[in-house]
Amino acid sequence: MAMQKVNSLFLNSTGKDVNPDLDIERKNPSFDVERLTNILDGGAENTRIRRAVDTWLQKDPEFSKENQYFRTQNERYEDAVRRSFYLEKKMNEMKWAEDGPERKYCFRALNGHLAFNVHQVFLKSILGLGTDEQIAKWGPLAEKFYISGTYAQTELGHGTYLRGLETTATFDVATQEFILNTPSISAMKWWPGELGRTATHAVVFAQLYLKEKSYGMHPFMLQIRSLLDHSPMPGVTVGDIGPKMSFENVDNGFLLLKNVRVPRENMLSRFSQVLPDGQYRKQGSDKINYLTMMVIRTQILEYEVVPLLMKACTIAVRYSVVRRQSELKPGDPEAKILDYQTQQQKLLPQLATAYALFFVCGYLQEVFDKGYRETKEGKFDMLPELHALTSGLKVIATDYSSAGAEVCRRACGGHGYSLLSGLPTLCTKLVASCTYEGENTVLLLQTARFLIKCFGAAINGKPLPPSVAYLSSENLGKCRAKEKRDFLNPDVYADAYRQRAFRMLRKAANKLQMLVQSGIAQYDAWNRCSVQLAQAAMAHSHYIVVEKFVEALERFGQEAGIQRILKHLCDLFALHGIHSEMGGFMQDGYLSTEQTAMVTESYLDLLAIIRRDAVPLVDAFDFSDGNLNSALGCYDGRVYERLYEWAKKSPTNQQGNQIFKTYLKPLFQNALSKL
Amino acid sequence: MAMQKVNSLFLNSTGKDVNPDLDIERKNPSFDVERLTNILDGGAENTRIRRAVDTWLQKDPEFSKENQYFRTQNERYEDAVRRSFYLEKKMNEMKWAEDGPERKYCFRALNGHLAFNVHQVFLKSILGLGTDEQIAKWGPLAEKFYISGTYAQTELGHGTYLRGLETTATFDVATQEFILNTPSISAMKWWPGELGRTATHAVVFAQLYLKEKSYGMHPFMLQIRSLLDHSPMPGVTVGDIGPKMSFENVDNGFLLLKNVRVPRENMLSRFSQVLPDGQYRKQGSDKINYLTMMVIRTQILEYEVVPLLMKACTIAVRYSVVRRQSELKPGDPEAKILDYQTQQQKLLPQLATAYALFFVCGYLQEVFDKGYRETKEGKFDMLPELHALTSGLKVIATDYSSAGAEVCRRACGGHGYSLLSGLPTLCTKLVASCTYEGENTVLLLQTARFLIKCFGAAINGKPLPPSVAYLSSENLGKCRAKEKRDFLNPDVYADAYRQRAFRMLRKAANKLQMLVQSGIAQYDAWNRCSVQLAQAAMAHSHYIVVEKFVEALERFGQEAGIQRILKHLCDLFALHGIHSEMGGFMQDGYLSTEQTAMVTESYLDLLAIIRRDAVPLVDAFDFSDGNLNSALGCYDGRVYERLYEWAKKSPTNQQGNQIFKTYLKPLFQNALSKL
Repeated sequence: MAMQKVNSLFLNSTGKDVNPDLDIERKNPSFDVERLTNILDGGAENTRIRRAVDTWLQKDPEFSKENQYFRTQNERYEDAVRRSFYLEKKMNEMKWAEDGPERKYCFRALNGHLAFNVHQVFLKSILGLGTDEQIAKWGPLAEKFYISGTYAQTELGHGTYLRGLETTATFDVATQEFILNTPSISAMKWWPGELGRTATHAVVFAQLYLKEKSYGMHPFMLQIRSLLDHSPMPGVTVGDIGPKMSFENVDNGFLLLKNVRVPRENMLSRFSQVLPDGQYRKQGSDKINYLTMMVIRTQILEYEVVPLLMKACTIAVRYSVVRRQSELKPGDPEAKILDYQTQQQKLLPQLATAYALFFVCGYLQEVFDKGYRETKEGKFDMLPELHALTSGLKVIATDYSSAGAEVCRRACGGHGYSLLSGLPTLCTKLVASCTYEGENTVLLLQTARFLIKCFGAAINGKPLPPSVAYLSSENLGKCRAKEKRDFLNPDVYADAYRQRAFRMLRKAANKLQMLVQSGIAQYDAWNRCSVQLAQAAMAHSHYIVVEKFVEALERFGQEAGIQRILKHLCDLFALHGIHSEMGGFMQDGYLSTEQTAMVTESYLDLLAIIRRDAVPLVDAFDFSDGNLNSALGCYDGRVYERLYEWAKKSPTNQQGNQIFKTYLKPLFQNALSKL
Repeated sequence: MAMQKVNSLFLNSTGKDVNPDLDIERKNPSFDVERLTNILDGGAENTRIRRAVDTWLQKDPEFSKENQYFRTQNERYEDAVRRSFYLEKKMNEMKWAEDGPERKYCFRALNGHLAFNVHQVFLKSILGLGTDEQIAKWGPLAEKFYISGTYAQTELGHGTYLRGLETTATFDVATQEFILNTPSISAMKWWPGELGRTATHAVVFAQLYLKEKSYGMHPFMLQIRSLLDHSPMPGVTVGDIGPKMSFENVDNGFLLLKNVRVPRENMLSRFSQVLPDGQYRKQGSDKINYLTMMVIRTQILEYEVVPLLMKACTIAVRYSVVRRQSELKPGDPEAKILDYQTQQQKLLPQLATAYALFFVCGYLQEVFDKGYRETKEGKFDMLPELHALTSGLKVIATDYSSAGAEVCRRACGGHGYSLLSGLPTLCTKLVASCTYEGENTVLLLQTARFLIKCFGAAINGKPLPPSVAYLSSENLGKCRAKEKRDFLNPDVYADAYRQRAFRMLRKAANKLQMLVQSGIAQYDAWNRCSVQLAQAAMAHSHYIVVEKFVEALERFGQEAGIQRILKHLCDLFALHGIHSEMGGFMQDGYLSTEQTAMVTESYLDLLAIIRRDAVPLVDAFDFSDGNLNSALGCYDGRVYERLYEWAKKSPTNQQGNQIFKTYLKPLFQNALSKL
């Protein structure tokens, strides 16, 4: 039954209405497209469920995104809240398990169109930071949504550096209460989602003061709005921070506290407690909480980053075989723009990047799961590596995805500038990921700090964690490629990336050491090396992505077609990187001028090869039209028809034009007698 | 009197309310800031007039941009129309000359907040393409705004490639009329500004058909809306194409024509005429019209591109000395983020780029003026060089400015994502410039075509135009720098850029020749080289920018302070480019590994030097607060206060929250008894 629905949905798109220029691209894929989709879904059963969910969503107009591009910030917010409640009701009617795949696919498909994401973080922080009594008290209320919460950490003047946060919580022994205050304007909580117009409660992070001594950041449960009429509680000033580049569905907010009192029991006290007499007591290890930050970064890549790059590729590739422009061969009709080498060079490396990031996310999840198990058993050895790895990979994934989506957008020319293409929204959402959950430069320097430590350990003959093991094997030969096909050998290019990362790190480490030895303070020396350290950390992360893509290829040894196309993409990802950042690979003569020419030729050859499968490769991502929400990217390739249909719906075409009556008509009358 | 006004305006900003962290940055500039402002304005008198205009604009609430970030597309459009009429009235009251500097500064300051830009293009196309009779008929109507016009060339399915345009104009001898038609959906006119909701007339480009034979693109004057009630004329379908990434003030539109008849006299006939019997006659040379395209590109750089990068730099640099984050030196207060090398490496190269582009724009204007004079005298020799030059420089300026503004935006962290920072608007406007008025890749390949021709001419010993003269002097030595300070010699780095461009072009030319000699068709060979050709054209343009910056330094030999700081910026621009694209400079051993290390060290040294003058360097751009319209970038540095003040004004904080009553309250009541 569900299968039938799926078929009918997809029949609609594969019928005779498909633009022939797009249709022909699907005739002879070099690989089994459905099988690749299954791989991306993690199995055929997942593909089936995901499609059933997509079909279910597409049937219901309440889930349509059709008019989103015309909606104001306020409408987007109200839509998101309404849709969230409706979805919850419908999912319950379907009797889908709380942690079942159907719900996951719903949330994924409606990402950006729902509310209450931060409420989940609020709930998790109660469960992770609260005592059993606190969990028993607030957990069920949050779970049933009897209260609505947010997670208030970032301040107007303070982001990544937690020790800089200014909000204070001073314990008053007499009343057994904490008094929370915002001591200055820069101390206002700023940015938390759902704080602006929704939340009744907040987990607020504040500097704990006991008898005028500071004990650092601690979490406090605070009611910020009345449950009866939603008005701010006494001492609370709260509101929306205004418009952003995207995320109109989220009401990011500000919070100002003036002598707000909460009982002693409102400090979330799983890991530290304030006794009635004002004594401070630490208990247990909160290391497991570091994992929360890491799991959020991993999930962001899987939900908010990589799929958005995949969507951008889908839209741009499909459009590029429908759009025709200029003569390629004199006398021929205008050519598909994807037949131009310059267009291939824009889009196909992004496609390869999307696949590369997909596989490295799988690897990251594996390492994370192992780290989680060990940490729960009280073994914390993996934490530093895991932190460095999630940081570095978060940076490269968000950096490459946002740059890549922008390349896709620009490759669609003027139409890529229209919101109706769907591309601007993808781009403005993706660029946010370079800043949130750890600003990219800050994260790179944290990865660099770990790498420098490992580099020092390697010199002292100590064993290194797996992802940095290569730092102990000094093997600085030159590249052994003799002709351009040698660069299609993964050992050759993986070695190039490994050696580059090693060289860059060694140079930064040597400079650091030299500066310190010359008498410059450690902190100053670090700062003077930080550009090079960040670059080294990026080169390291780039190497990991290449290496993990190469390793993933081995899994498909039994499937020649799949392995061949993935190998092409892996080659392209690696060679595009070398071609684009040649200088780093040429250092110390690792690559000669002749070899860089071979890289370029091999890279350009790959473009022509992958171009043939470009449409099947984006089809394999298998986004439904409703999910893409792009006039340029639909499965049927009816690009111009859809742009026109959608444009006609723009409210600007329905609004009466006051301008004419007020300003233009009086002037235009002067022309009547003259024309 | 005017001077007093200026002073009082600027006194407001330099009083004691300036954030001390910003104030201290202004205490010891290494150069005369006012003098640099005068240079940027083209003289002290211009600075005086510009400030007087800014003061005048800031006094009048009608010109305030304060709430723009909260306005809808429709409101922005209506604001722009209303403001345009109001401005016209006020400027007339001031009795400012039609082509005087005051009007120019008004338009520049209100760029993006006015309507009727395309009406000016409409008027210019009448004057440029019409016969004397046609100019006499429509010119005055357009000038007095008795009719409102647009310029309709681009079609839904056709952009840069004019021969691909599909709209037809068929001459009917019987009625002496042209019949205009949109033969397919992809032939709809799409994108013209002011077409969506405003224009009554359009200059429409269509394929001329006489007796079933096509004569190519010609311009036709067409009435599209009634002057009485603004309804579409018979056979005309017209509307707005919907929301875009930016340019909310402009009503970009679509136009569909069905058997729309216009009299024979409506073909703009300065250069070609259709006689009553349907005969076609060409007359005169339309080469002067090529200059129109070029002058538009030059003006875009001056008005729409470089100032936006300057604004982004101003905002990000000022914010970066107010924002403090993390400990740099242990135990110290949190450091200004501009004191981190990684932040300097983000912002200061953008600042250097803004200055580099300012000087190259001046050069472009000079070359253009010369070309214009010669063309008017019937000498067309300069046109190909001028076209290649404007194309290449348009690409590098738009590419670098949009990338640079995004770097500035991201360097402001989370607050750079808020529209209130002003940065998102700058970024989304700038990225459009990479696509409009000639898509960048298309333009680069046109420049490349010219370069390849010149390269061939050089081999044959023919003389070359000045900007490419270096192509005839083969001088492929290695870089002669021996220590890092050698890279502060402009001869050294200019040579590096020149040699790189030469090598890249030679490699592309050789490959092209080899492919053709191997039997591959010319068109196919060109396509297979196009990635490398585009890169060579970019390298050439980059060289021109460096060379013209170096030449500009010579003009300030009498002003040590100015020359020194500009020299630092020129060095930084050049070395940042080498550091970022090292591979191209290392080809054929031009730079050795040791020399690239010197470049990097010299580049990093410069960051620390220029950092000291960073605030004076952006102050020299002298944007008024009203013009910047940024909560982060104001002169007084009251960043957090202003963000809070502006956020409070967001309509989301005034809108009653229906969400609470409908969805939340019924649930929250369940919690009342439990808390």
